[in-house]
Amino acid sequence: MPNIKDVAARAGVGINTVSRVINNRPGVKAETRARILDIIKQLDYVPNEVARNFRNQTSNVVAFFVPFVSNPYLAKVTASIEHELHQRDLKMMLCNSDSHSEKELAYLNIVRKEKVLGIIGITYNDVHELLETNVPFVSIDRFLGKKIPCVAADNFMGGRLALRELVQKGCKRIAMIGDAGVVQSEVRHRRRGFKYEADELGIDVIFHEKRNTIGYSHNNIVFIDKLFDKVPDVDGVFAVSDLLAASVIERATKKGIHVPSQLKVVGFDGIQDNPIFSPYLSTIVQPVEQIAKTAVEILLEKIENPKLRSDVITIPVAYRQGDTT
Amino acid sequence: MPNIKDVAARAGVGINTVSRVINNRPGVKAETRARILDIIKQLDYVPNEVARNFRNQTSNVVAFFVPFVSNPYLAKVTASIEHELHQRDLKMMLCNSDSHSEKELAYLNIVRKEKVLGIIGITYNDVHELLETNVPFVSIDRFLGKKIPCVAADNFMGGRLALRELVQKGCKRIAMIGDAGVVQSEVRHRRRGFKYEADELGIDVIFHEKRNTIGYSHNNIVFIDKLFDKVPDVDGVFAVSDLLAASVIERATKKGIHVPSQLKVVGFDGIQDNPIFSPYLSTIVQPVEQIAKTAVEILLEKIENPKLRSDVITIPVAYRQGDTT
Repeated sequence: MPNIKDVAARAGVGINTVSRVINNRPGVKAETRARILDIIKQLDYVPNEVARNFRNQTSNVVAFFVPFVSNPYLAKVTASIEHELHQRDLKMMLCNSDSHSEKELAYLNIVRKEKVLGIIGITYNDVHELLETNVPFVSIDRFLGKKIPCVAADNFMGGRLALRELVQKGCKRIAMIGDAGVVQSEVRHRRRGFKYEADELGIDVIFHEKRNTIGYSHNNIVFIDKLFDKVPDVDGVFAVSDLLAASVIERATKKGIHVPSQLKVVGFDGIQDNPIFSPYLSTIVQPVEQIAKTAVEILLEKIENPKLRSDVITIPVAYRQGDTT
Repeated sequence: MPNIKDVAARAGVGINTVSRVINNRPGVKAETRARILDIIKQLDYVPNEVARNFRNQTSNVVAFFVPFVSNPYLAKVTASIEHELHQRDLKMMLCNSDSHSEKELAYLNIVRKEKVLGIIGITYNDVHELLETNVPFVSIDRFLGKKIPCVAADNFMGGRLALRELVQKGCKRIAMIGDAGVVQSEVRHRRRGFKYEADELGIDVIFHEKRNTIGYSHNNIVFIDKLFDKVPDVDGVFAVSDLLAASVIERATKKGIHVPSQLKVVGFDGIQDNPIFSPYLSTIVQPVEQIAKTAVEILLEKIENPKLRSDVITIPVAYRQGDTT
């Protein structure tokens, strides 16, 4: 009776690869899978217990590191990644880090112990151990070096589109607001694209920046108010996120500045799926489903080929017209 | 040299319990844990490999079944459950079902195979297999029988508070809108409380109902518009969710009905953590952190005592004043 070694030899692959096919696990190219299934048929091979047990020796779990699962953009990313994993018979371990490096480290230790298949991660911290880990790791929104593939929206083009939109709508005094000038993540390319477009158009733009502009805090309110003090005639704002854009509009409205007639605002993310909460933001929409799909695909490639190196894989963005420009 | 059996005998517990203490796992009462640690010290017992291996024989993973992780209320629940699990050294497997019973069933099969510690679940489907499973299971927001502990907000009181608020603000023609009359979940008690309070106050209220009022869809818009056709003088609405409340306000505004001067609206959930998107809803706030904490605690009790039976454990709610009443 033929065994798994016969199948592997005939197919010119390792036993592990045959086992993956038998157990319908990922990490095998479609054509290789088809060839192995063909050989299994030809040889009339019945998988034995050993082969079946392969399934239990490695895990089908992918760890997903996310700073804040309840943030609207990140909740969408989480749902999309889960969807893509489930389609491939993989499970998600949710590692919600609250953006604390200690919690990320704690999860990394768990991930190692549990023989997790791989990690898809959004991290804003420099967790040395995470960067050095042997577990296949795909980053979203932050480039951590060529050894760790990174998937991100085309933030640079997003910045360009935002400025173009504000200029086209007639804005003369345009500012970008947020933390894009100080973060290490791909978000900084929103600022680069914005500046690039300004140079192309030969116009001056203002950058109003500080660290950590996530959330609706007293600090952020003071920070936004300072922009209106510093640039009283500002008539166009590109905010680094939709939530910050909404805060800008809330503060402007409090000061009696009308949006969009006196001040036009473009956000970034595309967190509003419907117009029931206002303002319905004009924004650069992140292609969340595409980002998720690509991240999972690249992770499976990385598992198959641990030496895979890559620059940032960027996914196109689009401008969506709302009521704020 | 003393072994784990000696410790167990001296403490009057099973080996499994001692192992849980050694490996810092949950499911042991604080006083039992303290007693065992004491005995370990007294006997100068050093855990051997067998004991240490216990850790790997059962899993520290809790599966969390959620219909839509990107729904704002459910995203908050997910983050809170993850927080509570992590505090107890437990991990979350995210089982995002898209509210499809097939996907719930697929996840249930995985959960069984993976020897998951237990399940915390929000499900709107009747998955027979889920109800009959031997895996310790705690339900949120839906009572599935006394064998499955259920944790939910005090929906009944929420309905009462909502009506009280609308009456106090002077509304004369008050309607409740949503699916609370047709769902099996604890949400139906929002309607019961609303009706109870109306009877107490001796006033008539209108119920405007249909199946599935989640999301901003054409169906829901038509449904909301029908209320305004049917009851043109409606001046108070209690919506079964914040998202539906926001939809009601959006439709009213389109018709030139001003909120709150002509129409007052109370929602349910408390999904807005800040006032940057308007309207800032008057709403009944669900105590999400408390629900999550209680669900995890009850799950650990259920693991220790599989025969644990209970009615619904309700957590108090509160009314929060917004700009819509």
